[in-house]
Amino acid sequence: MASNSFGDFFKYTSWGESHGKAIGCVVDGVPPLIDLKEGDIQQYLDLRKPGQSKFTTQRKEDDKIEILSGVFEGKTTGTPISLIIYNQDQKSKDYGDIKDKLRPGHADYTYQMKYGIRDYRGGGRSSARETAMRVAAGAIARKIMPSNIKIMASMIEMGDIKICKEKWDYKTIINNPFFIADKSKIKECEDYLTQIRKSGNSVGAKIELRISNVPVGLGDPIYDKLDSKLAAAIMSINAVKSVEIGAGDNVAKITGSENADEISVNNKLVEFETNNAGGILGGISSGQDIILRFAIKPTSSILIPKKTINTKKENTEILTKGRHDPCVGIRAVPVAEAMAACVIADSYLKNIALTGKK
Amino acid sequence: MASNSFGDFFKYTSWGESHGKAIGCVVDGVPPLIDLKEGDIQQYLDLRKPGQSKFTTQRKEDDKIEILSGVFEGKTTGTPISLIIYNQDQKSKDYGDIKDKLRPGHADYTYQMKYGIRDYRGGGRSSARETAMRVAAGAIARKIMPSNIKIMASMIEMGDIKICKEKWDYKTIINNPFFIADKSKIKECEDYLTQIRKSGNSVGAKIELRISNVPVGLGDPIYDKLDSKLAAAIMSINAVKSVEIGAGDNVAKITGSENADEISVNNKLVEFETNNAGGILGGISSGQDIILRFAIKPTSSILIPKKTINTKKENTEILTKGRHDPCVGIRAVPVAEAMAACVIADSYLKNIALTGKK
Amino acid sequence: MASNSFGDFFKYTSWGESHGKAIGCVVDGVPPLIDLKEGDIQQYLDLRKPGQSKFTTQRKEDDKIEILSGVFEGKTTGTPISLIIYNQDQKSKDYGDIKDKLRPGHADYTYQMKYGIRDYRGGGRSSARETAMRVAAGAIARKIMPSNIKIMASMIEMGDIKICKEKWDYKTIINNPFFIADKSKIKECEDYLTQIRKSGNSVGAKIELRISNVPVGLGDPIYDKLDSKLAAAIMSINAVKSVEIGAGDNVAKITGSENADEISVNNKLVEFETNNAGGILGGISSGQDIILRFAIKPTSSILIPKKTINTKKENTEILTKGRHDPCVGIRAVPVAEAMAACVIADSYLKNIALTGKK
Amino acid sequence: MASNSFGDFFKYTSWGESHGKAIGCVVDGVPPLIDLKEGDIQQYLDLRKPGQSKFTTQRKEDDKIEILSGVFEGKTTGTPISLIIYNQDQKSKDYGDIKDKLRPGHADYTYQMKYGIRDYRGGGRSSARETAMRVAAGAIARKIMPSNIKIMASMIEMGDIKICKEKWDYKTIINNPFFIADKSKIKECEDYLTQIRKSGNSVGAKIELRISNVPVGLGDPIYDKLDSKLAAAIMSINAVKSVEIGAGDNVAKITGSENADEISVNNKLVEFETNNAGGILGGISSGQDIILRFAIKPTSSILIPKKTINTKKENTEILTKGRHDPCVGIRAVPVAEAMAACVIADSYLKNIALTGKK
Repeated sequence: MASNSFGDFFKYTSWGESHGKAIGCVVDGVPPLIDLKEGDIQQYLDLRKPGQSKFTTQRKEDDKIEILSGVFEGKTTGTPISLIIYNQDQKSKDYGDIKDKLRPGHADYTYQMKYGIRDYRGGGRSSARETAMRVAAGAIARKIMPSNIKIMASMIEMGDIKICKEKWDYKTIINNPFFIADKSKIKECEDYLTQIRKSGNSVGAKIELRISNVPVGLGDPIYDKLDSKLAAAIMSINAVKSVEIGAGDNVAKITGSENADEISVNNKLVEFETNNAGGILGGISSGQDIILRFAIKPTSSILIPKKTINTKKENTEILTKGRHDPCVGIRAVPVAEAMAACVIADSYLKNIALTGKK
Repeated sequence: MASNSFGDFFKYTSWGESHGKAIGCVVDGVPPLIDLKEGDIQQYLDLRKPGQSKFTTQRKEDDKIEILSGVFEGKTTGTPISLIIYNQDQKSKDYGDIKDKLRPGHADYTYQMKYGIRDYRGGGRSSARETAMRVAAGAIARKIMPSNIKIMASMIEMGDIKICKEKWDYKTIINNPFFIADKSKIKECEDYLTQIRKSGNSVGAKIELRISNVPVGLGDPIYDKLDSKLAAAIMSINAVKSVEIGAGDNVAKITGSENADEISVNNKLVEFETNNAGGILGGISSGQDIILRFAIKPTSSILIPKKTINTKKENTEILTKGRHDPCVGIRAVPVAEAMAACVIADSYLKNIALTGKK
Repeated sequence: MASNSFGDFFKYTSWGESHGKAIGCVVDGVPPLIDLKEGDIQQYLDLRKPGQSKFTTQRKEDDKIEILSGVFEGKTTGTPISLIIYNQDQKSKDYGDIKDKLRPGHADYTYQMKYGIRDYRGGGRSSARETAMRVAAGAIARKIMPSNIKIMASMIEMGDIKICKEKWDYKTIINNPFFIADKSKIKECEDYLTQIRKSGNSVGAKIELRISNVPVGLGDPIYDKLDSKLAAAIMSINAVKSVEIGAGDNVAKITGSENADEISVNNKLVEFETNNAGGILGGISSGQDIILRFAIKPTSSILIPKKTINTKKENTEILTKGRHDPCVGIRAVPVAEAMAACVIADSYLKNIALTGKK
Repeated sequence: MASNSFGDFFKYTSWGESHGKAIGCVVDGVPPLIDLKEGDIQQYLDLRKPGQSKFTTQRKEDDKIEILSGVFEGKTTGTPISLIIYNQDQKSKDYGDIKDKLRPGHADYTYQMKYGIRDYRGGGRSSARETAMRVAAGAIARKIMPSNIKIMASMIEMGDIKICKEKWDYKTIINNPFFIADKSKIKECEDYLTQIRKSGNSVGAKIELRISNVPVGLGDPIYDKLDSKLAAAIMSINAVKSVEIGAGDNVAKITGSENADEISVNNKLVEFETNNAGGILGGISSGQDIILRFAIKPTSSILIPKKTINTKKENTEILTKGRHDPCVGIRAVPVAEAMAACVIADSYLKNIALTGKK
């Protein structure tokens, strides 16, 4: 029921506004005796942090995480872990237009209408700044599941550019400003996004998420299916407009004889010949790689004027100056990984309770 | 936590296996004093019922719903409403291959691995038979929300066929065996699916869902966003592999200046010039039509033999005889409407509690 | 949120009215591969069943339980278990006064005011008939926890009579009409309650609950403490007005040096010298017996006229004829055991998930 | 499921250890547009704050509350409200015995056994320091419900002393060190507790809670009954060992003709002649005062040596020096009020959602 909490057993509750004093989260359901220090979380936050290249917002935030509770002498204690990041870049300033004008494509209109009030500074609660806490919670989630589970996301489309790469190398992905898996495409992405940025515009993207070495049996039918939970998790990320699993959208076009992944046993190991299912059958992980893709819209904060209304419901126009991401899809990569980690951790703990299998 | 429950405030819990004694659900969180009789539910079940045309499974089920509690003298009392459908077509018989063989593309393998046991008869709990209860709960959900809200789904793709129709007429949709909005395409669908069926094959489909007259303000950020809840609800339906909202997948390809829906006021009414957002901004309904599309895979129960394994983990082959849907996407249409109704009802009640607005 | 569900991981949802078609519940979160047949549940229902002696209501109900789902070939499958009891004694009849008059001491007034409607037949949803489903769910709960855990309740006070017995024998308790542990008091109880019944009156009672062999570590601070959950569970039983754990109410009167249970180790076993804590410290089971007591009020359905109002808010008088329990506390004994079993099962599964300890 | 969260709709999640960096909570489900400033919360914290008289712990804590999110320009925004108190008195020091010795009557043994680790400093998470956050959340809860609802608690027993007072005056209660309602008993309490304190001992207490002007209809049967929720809330407070509602424990001894509260109508107002029910019938508020009492044990931290074991499971002895409350029941008074406020606020919002009644 609590709208700002995610998960059932492994559960975190996030709080904070873009330009408030701080943002934070409380992570509950973490088993005791797990080694945890701030650096374990910081490494993932650093991947998401703004201002890392000219292709993300120039807002200056160290995003330095602090653990306030739940860890004693370097180990989790089974009690809630409170995390906080103080906002540095939140000094009072002129918020100009956005105080009164409701930016099209943003949550300004709906927040104003639902609540009758909104913290307009930087989008307040609706800002993607909240996703820092998803990344933080995800870093803890990763420590709960078996260590061989690998969760990787990579950008596979940005506007007109498509990046195809069958095998991914994690180092490659995290060492370029676009989180793409194909080094040879970096230059093309740079040129393309530079042009988008210079024109004061923004562009959408598509991200692929791959989770390997997932044990068979995670996910709980009927309404806690692993694919359903992943879809909810990903769709809750700001600007996401689609989610597909395995063959995804394409299944509408094919036949049953093309779609079913045949199964066989080789050397006592169960193998699937294809992976149209994307690693999930009947809502339960099959042991195949979980494959998920999602599209993320271009930010509506652009330097090109758009028609809109103000809080008095009068017609006006807006042009969003300031430090915005020309492609918000880039920073969604570590966020998606984190959300996947939270889902897997939650399903993993539930499965232990129900079946006793670790 | 309960894996077989859906919703928070308006909440239903479903139970039952395909070939068990009965299927049913318990609906909690229904306000008192609502007129409710079995016919109100039956009308929606009849749309989903098998055996209605040669294009759906020939399994004979009346799917006659019975209300066991929660209604007194024709009105809801605020207590839980228990619904039941006794399975008629469940007499003992030879389940043949599926007792030991794990059908590829189905949940047989994952259920067997997770639980160490499965009711193999007709897929047991993993059967789409469970969706009858979603339709039943959805019928009650519709009675909770303002009566002018319209929830309609329609098939827009089946294999190679695309059906485009800007304006939908509900009568047209429910009066053809494919739930398509364009009468002129019925013949083409019939011919196509007849051929699929005769070849012992099956085919995927894409469904569009449209919800009109939704009040502004439904949905609760950050993790109970209306789009996130809809995505979870739809992805929990058997065989669904993708969900997209508004411009959906296409947002990856476009720019911010193309994507943002401009807002204006005309005669004191707020209007959006386009609907790329699909009626949801920041997880909250904007008052525009909510637009959602999803792809549904072709059933893997086909007359064409496929390689698989048995419960002893030996290689074998399977060919699924019996009464199956050549396009399961058809019967997903009323199911998707029902899930949307449950999400809207739940969000509607929450919004009243938080903001007092009806 | 769902008001008719109990538990988080081991969770059941009950439904049904006293004189409706049936009552039932759906039990979710049951691990697979547990032997379960109707007889396992029926044995506990038979202890609670009305009409067993002249000291309980003469309403005739076989309370025959039927399993509708979740069990296959004698074993649980990890899917929801639906249970139903058809009401036999619900033929239409004259409900006389209670249709319009709001019985004092009952839920008639509050249900009518909250919902604007109530199923007045036998109290509808507010009837203690619902507790049959608690007993049924409890029977399944017992099969989830280690088999050496023993849950026993016994009546220790009825009106003026006090029953003290340090050691309890289960057979003695279930083989007398009062569920008392001291055989020598049976005659006194019979005489006392016969007199109460003949005078058209009713009387209160106090029940003690003892749970033995509980593993150390069940219960989850801060808001899922084992004592907090037990208190909620017991207080949710009809007519219960107090709950105390261990030394209970008496702790208000004593000093710290009297109250703290000293700990020692003997032959590597941890021992407590006293059990003022009632087996729970900081919300977590200590391994000592869990001791809980509760008081249950006398039913307000008596043959002595009482002032009340009717649904039109006019003054009137009521005298409840019909088949009522002169001491509803008696039948609360198996109900309390069942609620305790549900709490222990839920905490047991959670503890496995968090600590991996079975 | 989350063990550190309380409530469903109005929900808070608390975190922090006694001697960690800080303690805090996140309050979700707060309606927008409510005036809220730190002083609104501080006034209640000041009542609970340690070191106010020689009858409470001499630990020095300002308990200065800070709002970190969810409030904008003095008003709530409908987003989560994060509250924090930095621990001042937590400098590293010698924790002496309690590092290795498990204090009897405390949660040391059970935490150590369940989690395999515990923050032993001041009891860590199991410390009553956590209750500061209950008081903080309760202060917000009070602002959600109708302003005429009055929630008051008062100490009615301390060891041998009984305080009886039919009418309570809030100013009297909060202006004496014992939160008693009868001024004439202050001296007796002072003398009694001074003697307890000087002897290095501690003593238990009983508290009564009264809630007036509760609208009819709060509480949701069957498992969200108002009395069940209150019992869980109160029993979750450190050291509480019993909870009773209305006539409470005494109902075991009386007859139905004595117990039922007769109802009548006078000048169109519904009146009850007595209040044995304690303001709740069938789990729903009746509009009468809600009356609840609970017993709280004497702290086990005393200057009198007690036998115990250490973490190596060896026999030893402990004597707890330091700053402890001779009667922890005193500071439970504002905590109980706060928990009651949280329950009422939660039930109040639910009732709006279900019935539309404010």
